[in-house]
Amino acid sequence: MIGYFEDIAVGDRCELGSFTFTAEGIKKFAGQFDPQRFHLDEEEGRKSLFGGLTASGWHVASACIRVMVDDGQRRAEQARLRGEPAPSWGPSAGFRALRWIKPVLAGDTIAYASEVVTRRESKSRPEWGILQVRNTGTNQRGELAISFLSTVFVPRRPTA
Amino acid sequence: MIGYFEDIAVGDRCELGSFTFTAEGIKKFAGQFDPQRFHLDEEEGRKSLFGGLTASGWHVASACIRVMVDDGQRRAEQARLRGEPAPSWGPSAGFRALRWIKPVLAGDTIAYASEVVTRRESKSRPEWGILQVRNTGTNQRGELAISFLSTVFVPRRPTA
Repeated sequence: MIGYFEDIAVGDRCELGSFTFTAEGIKKFAGQFDPQRFHLDEEEGRKSLFGGLTASGWHVASACIRVMVDDGQRRAEQARLRGEPAPSWGPSAGFRALRWIKPVLAGDTIAYASEVVTRRESKSRPEWGILQVRNTGTNQRGELAISFLSTVFVPRRPTA
Repeated sequence: MIGYFEDIAVGDRCELGSFTFTAEGIKKFAGQFDPQRFHLDEEEGRKSLFGGLTASGWHVASACIRVMVDDGQRRAEQARLRGEPAPSWGPSAGFRALRWIKPVLAGDTIAYASEVVTRRESKSRPEWGILQVRNTGTNQRGELAISFLSTVFVPRRPTA
C-alpha cells in the first residue's frame, strides 16, 4: 500500500497478492531457518498433527512481506506512470498478535490482504500519521491461515 | 529448550545460540522475501536511515527460530545419550509484541536467548502446561535488536 494519510480511511482494504507454497520452497526455507521434520519431509509431515508437508510459520509470514513489498512497488510504479506522487510508507518497527490459524501445506496458495483498523495523527511527528493495519492470509478454501497487526507510519500530505 | 513443565521456573533463561548476518545471506533472504533496496544493496543501505546493508526484520526473526530449533535438537540428543527422556515442546500458535529495536547490519552477530516470563497449568488440556517466553536477540555490542513473546505448550511429567 502507498498513499498519503489524508486519503486513507478505517476499513480500507487492499488485496496484496498471492503466494503458492511448493514442496520445494517449503523444504528450502525450512532447511535454512526452521529444520523441523514436518517442514522437511512429506512422510514426516503426513505423520504429524498437520497431516502433510507444512510450511514454517515464518515462511508464511515472510511470504506476506514479499507480496506486500511487491504490491507497494507496483503501485508506486503505476503512480509514477500517471505522473502522481507515490508517497511510500515508513518502515514498520514491529508486529503484534501474530497467529498461525491453519497450517499451510504443500500446494496451498495464500491470498494476502491488509485492512486499516485504526488511524490517528502522530503528536510527536506532525509530518506522519499512524495506522494500525491487520494483515491476513487466506487459503484457496477461504480459510484464514495467518493474521497479524502492524503499526505503520504514513506520510501526511504536504500543505500547499 | 526441552523439558517437562514441572522442571521449569519463571526466570529460567536459555542461551540459544548465535547467528551471523553476512552481506550475502542478507541479500539472499531479501531477494526472496523482502526486496527493499536497503536489504539488497550496500550503497542503498548506506544512504538509508539504517546506515548500511540491513537484514530484513523477518530474516532476524527467522534466524531466531533456526537457533531455537537447533538448540532443541542438540538438547534432545544430549538427553538421549544420557538415557533420559527428552520431552519436546508443542508447536507455537503465534507470537506477540514483536519489536525490531536496532537494525541488524551486514557483519553483525546476534545472540538469541529465551526467558520464561509466566507459567501456568492448562485447564482444558491437563497433559500440558503453558509458558509465556520472551525471546530476544542481542548484537555484539550488547544492544537489544529484536524481542518477541511466544506462548508455548510444554508437556507435563507423566505421573508414575
